[in-house]
Amino acid sequence: MIVGQVMGSLWATRKDNKLNGLTFLVVKPISYGHDEASTPRDYFVAADNAGAGIGDTVLVTRGSAARTSIANPDVPVDAVIVGIVDSIEVSHE
Amino acid sequence: MIVGQVMGSLWATRKDNKLNGLTFLVVKPISYGHDEASTPRDYFVAADNAGAGIGDTVLVTRGSAARTSIANPDVPVDAVIVGIVDSIEVSHE
Amino acid sequence: MIVGQVMGSLWATRKDNKLNGLTFLVVKPISYGHDEASTPRDYFVAADNAGAGIGDTVLVTRGSAARTSIANPDVPVDAVIVGIVDSIEVSHE
Amino acid sequence: MIVGQVMGSLWATRKDNKLNGLTFLVVKPISYGHDEASTPRDYFVAADNAGAGIGDTVLVTRGSAARTSIANPDVPVDAVIVGIVDSIEVSHE
Amino acid sequence: MIVGQVMGSLWATRKDNKLNGLTFLVVKPISYGHDEASTPRDYFVAADNAGAGIGDTVLVTRGSAARTSIANPDVPVDAVIVGIVDSIEVSHE
Repeated sequence: MIVGQVMGSLWATRKDNKLNGLTFLVVKPISYGHDEASTPRDYFVAADNAGAGIGDTVLVTRGSAARTSIANPDVPVDAVIVGIVDSIEVSHE
Repeated sequence: MIVGQVMGSLWATRKDNKLNGLTFLVVKPISYGHDEASTPRDYFVAADNAGAGIGDTVLVTRGSAARTSIANPDVPVDAVIVGIVDSIEVSHE
Repeated sequence: MIVGQVMGSLWATRKDNKLNGLTFLVVKPISYGHDEASTPRDYFVAADNAGAGIGDTVLVTRGSAARTSIANPDVPVDAVIVGIVDSIEVSHE
Repeated sequence: MIVGQVMGSLWATRKDNKLNGLTFLVVKPISYGHDEASTPRDYFVAADNAGAGIGDTVLVTRGSAARTSIANPDVPVDAVIVGIVDSIEVSHE
Repeated sequence: MIVGQVMGSLWATRKDNKLNGLTFLVVKPISYGHDEASTPRDYFVAADNAGAGIGDTVLVTRGSAARTSIANPDVPVDAVIVGIVDSIEVSHE
């Protein structure tokens, strides 16, 4: 999984019906191994399954595992927010 | 998922029959975390499942989830356009 | 999927029996978003399922979808050539 | 699989129930092909299935295989620590 | 698939039991599209299913297809050596 920050939202009316009812959030990956400010990031879109909001630090599952969070194996999503991070401790030694 | 822009089309007559009937569009990934102009992008090909056209901003699902959009688990596609983006709001704080 | 160019062939006698009968081609990814000449590329190996030859521009499916092209879910391949590209149109605006 | 070093821990109370009971560790990839110090790394999060602790060198499985370690195909995890490395020998010729 | 060179071995006593009996080899990806010497590589770990040894040039399958080589869908591996390369011909035009 990766940690990310919710940076925004996306809306799409013309879409696969199986996606109806899902909230799509734009997520910036956070990597505690870098100087964040100087490292451009590829934002991606995740379906929200944790009630996340703009600015929240979230835990994102990607790939085939993402669908298991939405509990519908036919939903065409490859990234899902599965949790809102309370705290994270990272040492840099 | 990722957001992309449809940049073109691809045709292939000699192909796996299971791909027959699909439209193949060339997509440029868009990442709201970068200065787009200065970041070269790896374009890729996606099967269209939302009626997208050249220039449209689209939502693309990749990996094993892509096949669930085409509703045929045997179709050898690893990227599918699942929606046409109405709007996207991204903050950069 | 991605577009690639067939750059060569690979032979392996000592291999998983389930791979027997497959042709392995070396593929260079082509990304219409870059100045090709100046961008080094990671070549990879794909099983051929379209009758491709050296120099052909091909359409490649990767990941779990690749096996669906070979129509044998037990074949350990993660990249398959699923088509030979007739033409591709890409705008750069 | 990849080799990594456990750099920290992550806690998330508001999360997918199917993740309950799992320990989430922050992992820095280690690549014996680089001068580690000068190569920034994208840390990621893995569920622990080997009893790993901070500072341990671990073996991590990612993608759909990760769920098979947790022996529950419905758990939305895409990275699992499957072993604690005793030793690793790498030549650089 | 990718071509790699076996650079070493890894041992882990405390690991998922489903991994017991597997040999873990450290692999350096080889990409015929680069000047190898000047391109740092992320080494990774693959389970050996071809009887490979240190220094061998090997064919590696990654992702969900890897498990199909080990013929046990429950083994948590995401990379398997499926063959030892006899020869590879790559043109650079």
